Amino acid sequence: MKRITARPETAHQAALLRLLRDRAWSRAELGDVVDLSRSKLNFEIDRLIELNLAEQAGLAASRGGRRSGMVRLAGSLRFTGIDIGATSIDVAVTDGELKILGHVSEPCDVRDGPVIVLNQAMEMVGKLRDQGYFTQLHGAGIGVPGPVSFREGMPVAPPLMPGWDRYPVRETVGQELGCPAAVDNDVNIMALGELHAGLAKQVDDFLFVKIGTGIGCGIVVDGKIYRGVSGSAGDIGHIRVDDQGPTCACGNVGCLEAYFGGAALAREATAIAGRSPYLGERLRRTGTLTGEDVAAAAEMGDAEAVRLIRDGGRRVGMVLAGLVSFFNPGLVIIAGGVAKLGHVLLAEIRSVVYRRSLPLATGNLPIVLSELGADAGVIGAARLSSDHVFSAP
Amino acid sequence: MKRITARPETAHQAALLRLLRDRAWSRAELGDVVDLSRSKLNFEIDRLIELNLAEQAGLAASRGGRRSGMVRLAGSLRFTGIDIGATSIDVAVTDGELKILGHVSEPCDVRDGPVIVLNQAMEMVGKLRDQGYFTQLHGAGIGVPGPVSFREGMPVAPPLMPGWDRYPVRETVGQELGCPAAVDNDVNIMALGELHAGLAKQVDDFLFVKIGTGIGCGIVVDGKIYRGVSGSAGDIGHIRVDDQGPTCACGNVGCLEAYFGGAALAREATAIAGRSPYLGERLRRTGTLTGEDVAAAAEMGDAEAVRLIRDGGRRVGMVLAGLVSFFNPGLVIIAGGVAKLGHVLLAEIRSVVYRRSLPLATGNLPIVLSELGADAGVIGAARLSSDHVFSAP
Repeated sequence: MKRITARPETAHQAALLRLLRDRAWSRAELGDVVDLSRSKLNFEIDRLIELNLAEQAGLAASRGGRRSGMVRLAGSLRFTGIDIGATSIDVAVTDGELKILGHVSEPCDVRDGPVIVLNQAMEMVGKLRDQGYFTQLHGAGIGVPGPVSFREGMPVAPPLMPGWDRYPVRETVGQELGCPAAVDNDVNIMALGELHAGLAKQVDDFLFVKIGTGIGCGIVVDGKIYRGVSGSAGDIGHIRVDDQGPTCACGNVGCLEAYFGGAALAREATAIAGRSPYLGERLRRTGTLTGEDVAAAAEMGDAEAVRLIRDGGRRVGMVLAGLVSFFNPGLVIIAGGVAKLGHVLLAEIRSVVYRRSLPLATGNLPIVLSELGADAGVIGAARLSSDHVFSAP
Repeated sequence: MKRITARPETAHQAALLRLLRDRAWSRAELGDVVDLSRSKLNFEIDRLIELNLAEQAGLAASRGGRRSGMVRLAGSLRFTGIDIGATSIDVAVTDGELKILGHVSEPCDVRDGPVIVLNQAMEMVGKLRDQGYFTQLHGAGIGVPGPVSFREGMPVAPPLMPGWDRYPVRETVGQELGCPAAVDNDVNIMALGELHAGLAKQVDDFLFVKIGTGIGCGIVVDGKIYRGVSGSAGDIGHIRVDDQGPTCACGNVGCLEAYFGGAALAREATAIAGRSPYLGERLRRTGTLTGEDVAAAAEMGDAEAVRLIRDGGRRVGMVLAGLVSFFNPGLVIIAGGVAKLGHVLLAEIRSVVYRRSLPLATGNLPIVLSELGADAGVIGAARLSSDHVFSAP
């Protein structure tokens, strides 16, 4: 029978664990930032050590007087981050500070449904256990490529995930791994990854825009994911670009995704294949084109592909310009398959946002490409789990 | 010499005062919701009573055992809310629960600059003192019709307020009234008014859209105003409606304000005056037309005026539809001079938002007209002040 892993017993213990997640602290330093008497603070720290959540780490440098004891998260803490994409699964195991210890990636098809896909994910977690990365997990975070009811821990009417509607992902994974679990959509967990370990580390309020099969946005307010009242915040793919556009899968015309989502890009690529040597050749060989083919063509300097990307970037920029005026973020990060299109795309987005948003909102606003790549998802999923476990009981 | 009014000494005292702002509580009930031992709680409450911030209010109904003492905010607490508009000043004095005790309203011209306008506001506060509504104020909140650096307590490059740029409004008012002061823009304070006493009372995340000379939006996240990293969040007047529109004062084309701000509405009204009996007559008499004339004409059933309002409402709806998909609010409130256009405007906005936003975001989304009117500004300004004074030291 598995041992039950400890969780913080009080709000103070949870707050201490969140501080220790960033680095080791001396007891004296902790006393400076938490609102507890010295004896109560030492009691809570000692209790965290008893619970195997924290451990002593020698003595701090002297601040005058007796040297204070250092405390850090227990070296035995382990979280897993599971990032389920439309066509792949990434699983990582991290320590308490959410540094990746082991990471495996496998192809999958999310349309095979939750039983097959979650079984594969559990086997991948098992491989990491067999490789010695953990014996017991303290928490698991899962990202899925569709809308999620965060409170209920399940996907809700996800368009790309047949069979997953209201499937109890959180409950299933929690029972299977014997630890607390949390589920969110892939864009939110990638935003959390950027917050924890990426370009947004020092930024409280930022937007994370993922351009892939769909187009979505993670919104971080005051260092926390903002999900909106029904959990759909950040769903920007169906914001109107103009009234005379292609018809979108949602039934409206002129949505951003109808211009620059994965399906739209594949359609446009096929339409220009006659004028593009690279895409034409590729279409003859494989019979179909994807957004990634457009990226590859653009990288090789194919003028028609570059034009497609510029047009798409301009439209993403138009939507983002409005959101930047509205939200006044401290940073915008662009990521996702299409973001591999890189600097052509970024230049176009920047040019529109800097021209069309309020000067006060763009004065100090960096717009950058994500640097974390596939790590953003797994680190973010581990962070989601850690936030959940290190929260007040 | 004036007596210095007390402020809470600890974060716990501040939290207790914020609870007491909503209603009277028994000590037992407070013990259920705050994370304090019984003796520490009683110590903090007794201290608030000593400081003349709270007072005893008899005994609570029995919950079994000894009856618990009721506590409420001190009856002597007084805040003032000062709402400076482009052409009027509203000043109110409230009690600690922010109920309006006295309210005066006077015309003014904000372009006369801060010395003349703030002097007039101070005289209006003096009138309320002379009428016996207070002897000493515990805090003052001020709203102004332009962008504000909330941290610095001053307007920053406000387009409609010549002479006010970086004028130390918070410092001046605080010194003049001998109490802590706080300053924000008019849209944010009206949103706070709705949060405290209006339709948003039970709503944590909502948008407050003011359509007047300019078009702005107050954003409330988790019961607090979200201001963005440089304080410009909610400035939606320059979001692009389309690429072939009128040129805006900001230099871009097709901004929302270029279609439906006060100046645009006046221009359009003049253009259609030949086809509109009411507007034509009004233009002959006064030589100029305003948005309020359009409202009056529409109310009388003038077809051309109604068409103007419908067109404007449709464009506000297009912008709002995107913001609703992005932000997934629990409520949208429409207010401001043009909002007096009422139900024609509201119907048009609703129709576009409900059609163009994500179904998940609009499923339970009410879009309503403000019911507070001029009270929203003064109550919100008092609330801003109360939030400031009842915050951790």
